[in-house]
Amino acid sequence: MRYKAIVSYDGSRFSGWQVQNDRPSVQQTIEQAISRIADQPVRITGSGRTDAGVHAYGQVFHFDLEKTYRDLRTSINSQLPASVYVRSLEAVADDFHSRYDVCWKHYDYLINNGEYDPLKRDYCCFEREHLDLDIMKEAAQIFVGTNDFTSFNATGKDEIVNQERTVYNITVAREDDMIRLSFYGSGFLRYMVRMIARTLMEAGKGKISLGEIREMLEKKDKEACHYNGEPQGLYLVEVGYQPFKMQ
Amino acid sequence: MRYKAIVSYDGSRFSGWQVQNDRPSVQQTIEQAISRIADQPVRITGSGRTDAGVHAYGQVFHFDLEKTYRDLRTSINSQLPASVYVRSLEAVADDFHSRYDVCWKHYDYLINNGEYDPLKRDYCCFEREHLDLDIMKEAAQIFVGTNDFTSFNATGKDEIVNQERTVYNITVAREDDMIRLSFYGSGFLRYMVRMIARTLMEAGKGKISLGEIREMLEKKDKEACHYNGEPQGLYLVEVGYQPFKMQ
Repeated sequence: MRYKAIVSYDGSRFSGWQVQNDRPSVQQTIEQAISRIADQPVRITGSGRTDAGVHAYGQVFHFDLEKTYRDLRTSINSQLPASVYVRSLEAVADDFHSRYDVCWKHYDYLINNGEYDPLKRDYCCFEREHLDLDIMKEAAQIFVGTNDFTSFNATGKDEIVNQERTVYNITVAREDDMIRLSFYGSGFLRYMVRMIARTLMEAGKGKISLGEIREMLEKKDKEACHYNGEPQGLYLVEVGYQPFKMQ
Repeated sequence: MRYKAIVSYDGSRFSGWQVQNDRPSVQQTIEQAISRIADQPVRITGSGRTDAGVHAYGQVFHFDLEKTYRDLRTSINSQLPASVYVRSLEAVADDFHSRYDVCWKHYDYLINNGEYDPLKRDYCCFEREHLDLDIMKEAAQIFVGTNDFTSFNATGKDEIVNQERTVYNITVAREDDMIRLSFYGSGFLRYMVRMIARTLMEAGKGKISLGEIREMLEKKDKEACHYNGEPQGLYLVEVGYQPFKMQ
């Protein structure tokens, strides 16, 4: 039986979805929990990786089990540390694939633009300088549409030749002192959301013009953009397996 | 020169305001930071203790320095870990005392009454069962006013003889899945807010009646109440040094 699971986790406690150093990875942690229940090694496949420090409310993974189990979601959660939580679990068709079948992803990037808050240091990016939301909204539109994002990601051309992706929408909203950037797209390459987020912040501070951002994008050059937002501001909110509809 | 400081801190990283075991205390951490700047041991006096896991946005402390320093607040913050932040610092009269001069304190108690959130596990109390806010509001009124709180705190009668305190107001409000209990009072004894908070939650679940709560309070007995809310839900929000005014 194949299962699809939606999971939330606190990225500050892990090396990322995959093992990157000595610290435990989210994938490893979940595999250990399910393997204990199945009493044999179980591997899981995520919709994609998240880096160290990056959070998730809607990461998706699939896995296969031979037997069926009662209250499987509750059992898995009881084996997981408090920093990981399986929000939903359902049996799916045997050919469902959490990575290959992705239609779109939704990431949020959170910025504290008010007073420094020691309780939120692992859960947002802190920016002391005032950010102009109107400029950030205008700058965001530069990235919307189908573009070659070579300048705005860290994946080598040798690794992934085609770096064209479709960004369906980017919204910018203030909630008190917190600014939320929401990204909806067909897929995001490594550091892509964080690099765009930081670029929008620099535009909001007046450090870079809309023209300069357009140039950076058009250059299709790995050296064009040196901005990269801190990982703790990034959240994988939702993974869509149906064609994207504007919300 | 005497200074008054307002500090916020993430209680999940400390043994509490005062040393309770091997882990560092907030007080110790701040004293080390100021001592490095003054180049001599400096002691600070807090408005009161907070227990391990309890957070603060408005803890107040005072201390004395012989010399004056430029940008002292910035210097102290640069010496502090990211989990502690001095929000304000001002020179005050030599006879100001952060503990003796307290007129009132405001604590919040945060309860997640929705889906379990692994990112908020250290920042609120989680309650799966539905809480009835109307009953909680009614129950809260039992504690408002001047009462002997012997039943609702963990301080021995031998330690503090007079356990009469005035609670000015308790408000109960829902913000999406989060319930915020706000406590305003002349002073709170050890575990007092957490014991009342947990009692209100039990009332909200229908596990205890208003009559039973009244009885517990009237008993003035250390054995009357065995409820105690988890520390991670508690926040010291503000310490007042002027007579309390209803907000």
